Amino acid sequence: MFKVMLVDGNAERSNSLKDELSAMDATDVICVDSSKDLMGQVRQHAPDVIIIEMASPDRDTLESLRTVNRETPKPVVFFAQHSDHETTEAAINAGVSAYIVDGLSASRLSSIMDVAIANFKAFQKLKIELEDTKLRLQDRKDVDKAKGILMQHRNLSEEEAYQLLRKMAMDRNMKIGDASRNFVAAMSLLGDA
Amino acid sequence: MFKVMLVDGNAERSNSLKDELSAMDATDVICVDSSKDLMGQVRQHAPDVIIIEMASPDRDTLESLRTVNRETPKPVVFFAQHSDHETTEAAINAGVSAYIVDGLSASRLSSIMDVAIANFKAFQKLKIELEDTKLRLQDRKDVDKAKGILMQHRNLSEEEAYQLLRKMAMDRNMKIGDASRNFVAAMSLLGDA
Repeated sequence: MFKVMLVDGNAERSNSLKDELSAMDATDVICVDSSKDLMGQVRQHAPDVIIIEMASPDRDTLESLRTVNRETPKPVVFFAQHSDHETTEAAINAGVSAYIVDGLSASRLSSIMDVAIANFKAFQKLKIELEDTKLRLQDRKDVDKAKGILMQHRNLSEEEAYQLLRKMAMDRNMKIGDASRNFVAAMSLLGDA
Repeated sequence: MFKVMLVDGNAERSNSLKDELSAMDATDVICVDSSKDLMGQVRQHAPDVIIIEMASPDRDTLESLRTVNRETPKPVVFFAQHSDHETTEAAINAGVSAYIVDGLSASRLSSIMDVAIANFKAFQKLKIELEDTKLRLQDRKDVDKAKGILMQHRNLSEEEAYQLLRKMAMDRNMKIGDASRNFVAAMSLLGDA
């Protein structure tokens, strides 16, 4: 079942969208009448797509969207009635995948959701690759730091220091990056890192 | 002057868009009647935004878009008459910033371009951060490799090896990562890396 969470304070307006969504195959529609506690709603319902209708994204809604985007990102379709450069940029930067100004069209809903999902996926792919690369860089820095401390304190070669860290990580069933960070943190408690 | 490149093989259709674009303040419109050699056209005109109208993105157009996205990325608005999941995803992955199916609307053009530009900027920001992080990781690996070779061949400490690489890089006005890569490449010619 494909779950859509529809957020709209205007019951009449949202009904037409709801009817259109409900007519779609295998689609479950959850209606929410406010973007307050968007994060709580998203956690509770775990939707596949969030659709928001609002005159223009207000400050609280943008903040809620940023939280969702950080904690549990989802494709978001936003139908605004009006916007300007800054608001548009703020909405996109808050994680809106498809921002549609003055273009609410029930007939195009399916293709708009397709675009939102494709855009969301492309973004997530880049974000995950970035997080992964950052972690690998950080791991390398921390392993280097831990190696340096070991080499100095125990008068080891680089290779010996590395093998020692690797063994410590394996014995504790940790990744070498995490084991190195722990070791560096422990040494800094002693004033040695 | 804001430069828009409008790509459409259908002169009649593109005229209405062209009129709408030309009516915008400080906007220069370049019309191109085919997506063949899109890359060449982009290089020649250096547009701020590319707008493409086409029944549906064909294989050649997607390929051209991927090339532009790799070589000299620009915000791309694509007006398609129809699409399916796969084509939508292919268009987004080829770098289309705003993909609009069956929703060509001259009156919304300005807000659609805003969204495309904001979306494009958000993507580019992530991509640049990713490239930068990848380069820093690669630099670290190559510096480590170069250090290792120096330590072994000249019986140096890690710190001495690092200082030697740093000096070599400074003397040649290079970044230490590049200098290390050069050094590793040279040593591998000798069969020593």
